[in-house]
Order: sequence, then C-alpha cells, then structure tokens
Amino acid sequence: MSKLKLNITMSIDGYVAGPDQSPEQPLGVGGEELHGWLVSLKAFRELHGGEGGEVNESTPFAEEILGGAGATIMGRNMFGGGPGPWDESWRGWWGDDPPYHHPTFVLTHHPREPLEMEGGTTFTFVTDGIESALEQARAAAGGKEVSLGGGASVAQQYLAAGLLDELVVSIVPVLLGGGAKLFDNVGDAKLEQVEAVAAPGVTHIRYVRR
Amino acid sequence: MSKLKLNITMSIDGYVAGPDQSPEQPLGVGGEELHGWLVSLKAFRELHGGEGGEVNESTPFAEEILGGAGATIMGRNMFGGGPGPWDESWRGWWGDDPPYHHPTFVLTHHPREPLEMEGGTTFTFVTDGIESALEQARAAAGGKEVSLGGGASVAQQYLAAGLLDELVVSIVPVLLGGGAKLFDNVGDAKLEQVEAVAAPGVTHIRYVRR
Repeated sequence: MSKLKLNITMSIDGYVAGPDQSPEQPLGVGGEELHGWLVSLKAFRELHGGEGGEVNESTPFAEEILGGAGATIMGRNMFGGGPGPWDESWRGWWGDDPPYHHPTFVLTHHPREPLEMEGGTTFTFVTDGIESALEQARAAAGGKEVSLGGGASVAQQYLAAGLLDELVVSIVPVLLGGGAKLFDNVGDAKLEQVEAVAAPGVTHIRYVRR
Repeated sequence: MSKLKLNITMSIDGYVAGPDQSPEQPLGVGGEELHGWLVSLKAFRELHGGEGGEVNESTPFAEEILGGAGATIMGRNMFGGGPGPWDESWRGWWGDDPPYHHPTFVLTHHPREPLEMEGGTTFTFVTDGIESALEQARAAAGGKEVSLGGGASVAQQYLAAGLLDELVVSIVPVLLGGGAKLFDNVGDAKLEQVEAVAAPGVTHIRYVRR
C-alpha cells in the first residue's frame, strides 16, 4: 500500500507558517523565510523553468518533495480561496499548470466538482473526511507515495489518527514567534527518528511512525 | 571573553520539560524521556560512578555538557525548593556533591548566602539580574565557557537579551504535548546553524548568535 508521507519545513520554534496568514501572505508574516533552503536549489529552479541554483545536501530532500509522489492531499486553507462555500473562480494559488502534476485531493466541508488543470493536476474536493481522502489518494497514486501537502491542521489530523507513515521535518534557524504550529493536538502520536542530515541553513530529520 | 552556551534537549514539539513539574517530577510528566540519549551513554554513566553504556555520535555532545564549562548559570526553578523566600534546608536536587564541580550561579529574587558543596560546586545566589549573573560567572569561569543550565525561562531571557553566544539543541522524537517551551518570548533573537549531527534517537543542532 502506498505510504502517506509529509515533508514540511518548520522554524526552530515550531511553526510551519507565520502569524496573520492572508491571500497576500499565504505563509503568514515571515513565513517565506522558511523555504529559503528550497528555493535556492537548482532542483527547485529547474522545475519552475529557472536557471542556476545550488546543489547540496538538501538536493535529495528537494527531489523527494518535488517529484516523488503519485498523489497529494491538502487542506482547504492550503488550496486557498477563503473559508465557506466556494467561489468557483478560485482555482488555487498556482495558475493553470500547478506544480503537482498528479491527482490532488483537497479536504473541505464544501462540495465542489473536480477541477482538471493543465499538466496532469486534477483537484478533487473531498467532503467525507481524512480517511476517505487517503483511500482515494492511494487508489490514484499508481503505487507511488501519497504526499501530504499540508497545512498544519491537516498534518495534525493525520498524525493524531496514526495514518502518517513517514515525516521529514526540515528545521530552519528561524524564529517566527507565532503562527501555525505543526505539533499541536497530535494526541499520542509516536515517532522514531531514522535519519538526520545537515545541510546549509537547514537540518532534515526523517521520522517514521513507531 | 568566555562564551555563554546552552546545551538543551527539546522534544520535537518544542518542550524542554513536560507538563506539571513538581518536586517528584522536576522535568514534568514525560520529561525524563527527553534525556534517554544522554543517560544511555558511557560518558554519562562514568561521571555518575556507573559502568557500561554506549559510545556513539552523541558522545562528544555529552562530553561538552558534562565537562566543558568553568561556571554555570541556572534559574531558581532548576535549583528547586519551590518559589518564594528560601527554606535553607533545601540545598538543590543533587545531594552533597553536585555534578557541576565549579562555581554555579542561581538566579533568584530572594537573597541567600552562598552554599559551598563538596567537589568544587559553590552555589551563589544572584538577585540583581541576568547580566550580573553572567558577569560573575564569566569572572569565575577561569577562561572556560559559561554554561547556561536552564530552565526554559532563563534560557529565554538570555536569548531575548542577545547574550547567548551558542546554543546546541538536541531534538528527540518525543511529543510531550505541553510543558515548558524553549522558544517562547525570545523577541527577535537571530540564530545561524553551524552544525547538525545525527545520533541514535536524537539530532544535535548547533546554532550561534547571528
């Protein structure tokens, strides 16, 4: 069965997004600082049609994030468009060709027809809970991993339910002082460290469910 | 000038002690789990007169903690004995021969005469603030580092004041779900990652003030 996996960057004070998230600042105040390690990489720039960039100890982790999965699950807040019933003109943050390129499942309380985008991304809106989303994503992943896209609330729900198989936390020396915490409300989730890698400006720690 | 340095173990959810700290459980509920990596080591057992134990990637970090400093600063809560004016029968958690073996400065609002213990540890009670304690500790450290013993509140005060030169956070895959947070109230402290080392059940990340 496909593994459910989360790769996420966390500030050393525990936040995966800064305070005051808004359409203008989807990662909150200071949140963009979290991903400096990723956007500086050649692997990231190539995927977005850019040139140059670094190759370092973070590269294999970036490749996992950017190319490894066969399906993605994300929360409503990560897909965006504000809370409540859908304004169907909102088609996500990512333009016509989102960077997923595979079936992507959006957890929401508000039904909506699937959205077929360019480049292989289809957004399917799931209203019957995290287990249903996981089941659908596994069926759609073609034997590859299912990636948990985030945000924090969805990650917490899967962790607390014991459904997350693997978790890579990339810890950056940033203090956000507030925002969305990764590890609130995760019940008695049990983790085992299986790998840790030092890279410029970030430490990647891989955990599996114990 | 002697560096001020903090070596501290933090759960992946950000706590350096669990909830409900008490004389019976000075590290709070579940807090003992934090230091499994340390107490399993030969370096730790030898210092406490025990035998056996492991030698692994954590050993150099344990040696830093156990032997590197010329003076220690700690908070009232870490010295123990409850809040308020001193009950002078309380002489710390550690018996007649505490594991510091050097001048140790206890931050408190309540004056008390110095306590000379066996084995080279003298507890000096400092009532005029963190800068005074640091000045006294530096003068007493004989050119070696000054170790910040903890707990969380004292660590936060030194971090927020920009007085902490170096910080080694040992991150363990434990979820405490509550307790004393290391990185609350640290203002705009700036850190730079200079090293990260994977060891069994723990990742040690070294930061310096940026």
